[in-house]
Formats: sequence, structure tokens, C-alpha cells
Amino acid sequence: MGTSSRGGSGLEGVLVGRSAISWVGGETGELAYRGYDVRELVPGVPYESIAHLLLFGEPPASDPSPEVVRALRAVPPVPELVQRAVDGLPVDRTPLEALGAILPLLGEPGTTYPPRLEQGFRLIRRMPELLARFVRRASGQAPVPPRDDLSHAANYLWMLRGELPAPRAVNALEGYLDLLADHGMNASTFALRIAISTESDFFSAASAALATLKGAVHGGAPSRVTEMLDAIGTPDRAEAWIRDRMARKEVVYGLGHRVYKTEDPRGLALHAIARTVAHPDRLALAEAVEETALRLLRGAHPRARLFTNVEYYSAVVMEAVGLPPSLFTPTFAVARSVGWTAQALEQAADNRLIRPDVEYTGPPPNRRWPRPVPGR
Amino acid sequence: MGTSSRGGSGLEGVLVGRSAISWVGGETGELAYRGYDVRELVPGVPYESIAHLLLFGEPPASDPSPEVVRALRAVPPVPELVQRAVDGLPVDRTPLEALGAILPLLGEPGTTYPPRLEQGFRLIRRMPELLARFVRRASGQAPVPPRDDLSHAANYLWMLRGELPAPRAVNALEGYLDLLADHGMNASTFALRIAISTESDFFSAASAALATLKGAVHGGAPSRVTEMLDAIGTPDRAEAWIRDRMARKEVVYGLGHRVYKTEDPRGLALHAIARTVAHPDRLALAEAVEETALRLLRGAHPRARLFTNVEYYSAVVMEAVGLPPSLFTPTFAVARSVGWTAQALEQAADNRLIRPDVEYTGPPPNRRWPRPVPGR
Repeated sequence: MGTSSRGGSGLEGVLVGRSAISWVGGETGELAYRGYDVRELVPGVPYESIAHLLLFGEPPASDPSPEVVRALRAVPPVPELVQRAVDGLPVDRTPLEALGAILPLLGEPGTTYPPRLEQGFRLIRRMPELLARFVRRASGQAPVPPRDDLSHAANYLWMLRGELPAPRAVNALEGYLDLLADHGMNASTFALRIAISTESDFFSAASAALATLKGAVHGGAPSRVTEMLDAIGTPDRAEAWIRDRMARKEVVYGLGHRVYKTEDPRGLALHAIARTVAHPDRLALAEAVEETALRLLRGAHPRARLFTNVEYYSAVVMEAVGLPPSLFTPTFAVARSVGWTAQALEQAADNRLIRPDVEYTGPPPNRRWPRPVPGR
Repeated sequence: MGTSSRGGSGLEGVLVGRSAISWVGGETGELAYRGYDVRELVPGVPYESIAHLLLFGEPPASDPSPEVVRALRAVPPVPELVQRAVDGLPVDRTPLEALGAILPLLGEPGTTYPPRLEQGFRLIRRMPELLARFVRRASGQAPVPPRDDLSHAANYLWMLRGELPAPRAVNALEGYLDLLADHGMNASTFALRIAISTESDFFSAASAALATLKGAVHGGAPSRVTEMLDAIGTPDRAEAWIRDRMARKEVVYGLGHRVYKTEDPRGLALHAIARTVAHPDRLALAEAVEETALRLLRGAHPRARLFTNVEYYSAVVMEAVGLPPSLFTPTFAVARSVGWTAQALEQAADNRLIRPDVEYTGPPPNRRWPRPVPGR
């Protein structure tokens, strides 16, 4: 039935297709968008320009990309039927759960394959808007409409809070959004490309991506870093807490990655961003916990290549810009909306159904139903 | 970065894991659930017993499975907040689009990994109920609650129409649900297993599956068969219509499959079911179109192994039991809810992140941003 011996391997190292969008150098700790190393871009390049680069393949003529700014402003207002649907979502759901019900409603009724760039801008613009609408409504607040004079990053914080965010917070969030905008053939992007490969519509594909991003070993766990730091409390308690955790063979959050066998370049950049925005006490705690965890874990597993992953300082940055833990993973999805768009368009440009095979390990297909089957 | 040369192959023939649930014999035209050939089970075995077989690995002690009947009845009523959310969905959406927004709401708030059997029964029970609720509301009708004295198949038609369906229609629909309950590592099941592999929750994984099932080359196209039959109208017009279609190099719907290189056993069984339930004129039209299309296409492509696929008589059966084309793909999803549950539980039982690699074909990662980057 098949030719590979990789059954159960999680497809590690199996090439699933071609992509010219982002390059992940797992051995060297590099990530490049369209040939531009993110370490050269972040912080500083506006998210709109990163979007331009990822979507069009080249940097814009000026920053922020006038084309992307214009395209986002040109997205029509959210139809009233959709606003009402979002207002009708159960308030007992987390923002991430609500987002799962929101994404399928972001397109026009009857949207079909193929994905179009304009749909991507709709996703990029409307996801933060409707997420913020749900979050505010769940706490009894009126929605705050987007402002066209604000950057994408500033707008997100504005719509969540209804007050203008500090430039330092905007810059930090923008750096986060830049760094998380795309990342090769990760699991959620793969799910998105599978959906596009069946000729499903763009918003369904984005839903598949979000559903996959949600997993704790993918994008669903950065809030656990915050919980861990809260539980430890002060740097002097780090060693005892981590030793106890290791003794119970429990995971220390924010360490290790499938692809990176060295420092995650996004983690390093986010650490630098955290230094500009986090409260000094919180930063000192995070650094002490990181240093202690790496020291103890490397001592216990000398051959493992253990490094801080992107979630660790993602959590520190997101909490520093004022986002509650319940918005960490939704904000990751907001960042990834650009990458999802680029990946969907690329998949559709040279599309073929992604449909693997499976090794059947059940009983041979010659069993007999224990009773006569009526009608046969 | 990788070891396979299968980039762009759509993973055809690549083994992505192991499964003991269903076996697809693509060369011989066989499909077996847990070792039971579907041709021996359908029609006749109740959907509840097929669910038992797929979920527990063995046939029930009697039909319909008392355990499954009990488990479905034990699913708590849909919470009022969720009912209201469904009633608040935009009525300009198709039932399939609405279902995309409904699935993320089917679990308890805060549902996390791992998937549990009870969640599967919730999905199986609530998907048809809330789909029917949306469909009725969109046409201004009050919802019809499920009846515990009806079979799953009968309940679905009951909740859609509010009147008891004819036994012939129930049996035909049940045969359809049986035949579509699972099908190896198809694209939507693969998307579901990827979501579970990131430790996402069951209802998110089901959302990823639905988003993928929606694609026209997967489950999204059976309604096109109905449109095609409507357009042709009478058997004598089949040949001219298909010749014209072929001359314009357009697809004839309902033919060809990635895996089956012979008759699809589900298609044969659905053809037999269609004979019991379709109007004689419609059946004659469908058979004439099928015969003509195969004759002409095989004449034009003598080396292709072209056969009728499952969509063709699926469409004929679904229209015969009174389902409108807008419910064809949602009904496929209703059938597949059992397979999704079995596959999610199997994936979680021996889980590993499914994260393939990709061949990077973009510019080398040493480009320079055309302007100084502020803050660097």
C-alpha cells in the first residue's frame, strides 16, 4: 500500500512540498522570510511591511508598506449579521474557543476555492477586530471600532482596551507579531495547506490552521509559562521549584522544539524585546528561571540539545504589553494570519491533493458479522 | 533538511502512521471496518452498530448497539447559551458554513486534550441536531428536538422536517451513513489527526476535519452531481452534454478517485440503495449519464482507470431521501463523525507531533532590507 517506512514518525524530515516563503534553519538557529533573516528585521520593521514581504515576496518601497496599509483599510466593515453572530457567542467560552467559531464567518457567504489575496487581508484585519469585540462583550464592554490612523499592532491593543497604548508596548507587540508571522511547514500551516489541497475555501483552511495551532505542543501553551512564573514567584525559589518538577517528571514549559537544535532566533529576539518592556522584577524572575531550568535540565540530560523556545519570552512580552494569558494563543493566531495567507496562496498556485497513506494494523478484512444482516 | 524526494507528491503512498480502524483496498475495491467488509454490512446493519464496531473494535452483542444507543441518549441537552449562539448565526450562510461555526461550540467550555469517547458521542449526537436547528431557523421554522425512540438516521430526518420519515428513506440514509462513516487516512481525517497530534482538543480537531472535508476534491462536490443531472435533464441528452463538456476540457462530476483504481465499493452499494429509493426516471437518468460518461471518457483516455466514485450515487441517494443539495456535504460530515471520533482516540493513544518538512525554494537567507531598520 505504500513505499515509506516512516509510519508513526510524525513525518519528521519528510518533505511534504516546496515553499519559497520562509526558511527555518533548525541547526543554526535561523529564520528568514523570503531570504531576509528575521534577526535583521526585528524589532523595527512594521508588521505591515513584514506582511508585504511575505505576501508579495519583496520588501515594500517604504515603511510601513503603503499597499498593505491601503489594502487593510479597504476591507469592508464587518457585516451586521456577523457582528450580531459574534455578540451571540456563548460568553462562557475562552477567546480562543470563540475565535474558532468566528473564523468560519469572516468571508462572504458562499466563499469558495481558490483563496484570494483580498480574503487574506479580510482575515488579517477582521480577526483582531472580532476577537476584541468578543473579549470586550464577555466583560460587558461595548466594542471599540478599528482606527485607520493606527498601525496594525496599535489597533489591536486599541480595540481591546479603548485607550491608546504606549509606544513601547506597541513596538514590543509589533516585534512579536513580526517574529510569529510565518514559520515554514509547522503543523498548523500544514493543516491549512491540506485544506487548500482539497480545494476548500480560504476561511475554512484558516479554521483548520487555528484548530491545530491550539494544541499545547504547538501554539496553545505560552500561557503556561506565565502560570509557571506566577507559581515560582521570586528568583530564589526557582531552583527548588524546578527540581521538584523534574523529580515528578513533569515538563518545564518553554523549553525544547522539534526543529531547532540550538537557540530559537525568535526566542532571542523576544528576550531582547522583553528587556525593553517587561517590569524589571518580572524580567529578573524570567531570566533566573530560564537560567536555572537550562542548567538543571542540561545537567540531568547532558546529551539533549535543550534550549529556550519561542513560547518562553513570547509569554513575557505578551504579559508586559498587557495581554491576559487567555489572549496569548489568539494573539499568536493574529500574528500568523499573514503567514496563513501567503501559504494558502502558494499552495493554490501549484495545488495537488495532500492525501497520504497509512499502515493498516487491524484484523484482516474477512471477518463475518455475528448475526444475519437484514436485507442481505 | 530532509531525506525524502517526495516534495510536491501530495504524500501519495507515503505512510503517515498506523491505524487499525478501516482498511481501504484501492486496487481491489474493498473497504473494511475493523476487518468487516462493508459490502457484507450495508445495507442492514444500523448506524449505531457501525459506530460500535468502529469505536470499540468489535460488533455489538445485538443490533442496534445498546451501548451506543444509551451513550447517545445520555448526551446532555445542548446548553441554552449554545442554542442561542446557533440561533444567532448569520442566516445568509450555507448549512455547511454554519456547521463550521457550530463545531467549535459543541464541547464544554475549556475542553482540552486528550479526546474522550464521551466527547465523540457529543459530536455524533449534537452535530445533526444543531445543523437541523440552523437549517430550520434559516427558513423561519422552529427547532424540532431529537426523539429518543428514533434511530440516529431517522432522527436526523425528523429533526430536519418535523415529520416522521418513510422507512425506505430511513434505510437508504442509514446505508449512506454506514458507508461514509470512515475511510482510512483521507485528507480530513489526516487534518484531524494533525490537530490531535499538537494536543489540540477534540472539537477543534473535528473543526479541522470539517474544514478539509469541505474541499471540492474531497467531500464538497456531491451537489455538483445533482446540478449536472438537472442540467442534462433526460437520458437522451447525456451524450451531447458530456461530449460538449469533454470538448471544453471540463470535469464530469462523480468519476475518479485518488485511491480506488477500480469500482469504489461504496459507490456500488449506494447504486444498489439508489435502486430502492430513487424515482425511476431519476435513476434511469443517473444510470444513463454514468454509462455514457464512462464509455466516452474511457474511449478518450484508454489507459486511465476511470470509475464512478462515491459521490455519484451519494448524490442520487441523498436527493431521493429528500435532502437538498446544500445538505449533501453536511450529511457526509454527520456520517463521518463516528470515524473522526475513532481516529482521534487512536491518534491520542500513541501520539506524536505530525510536523513534516518542506523543501525551501526561495532566495538564500542573506538578503538586506533596502533601508536602515529603525531600532537596530
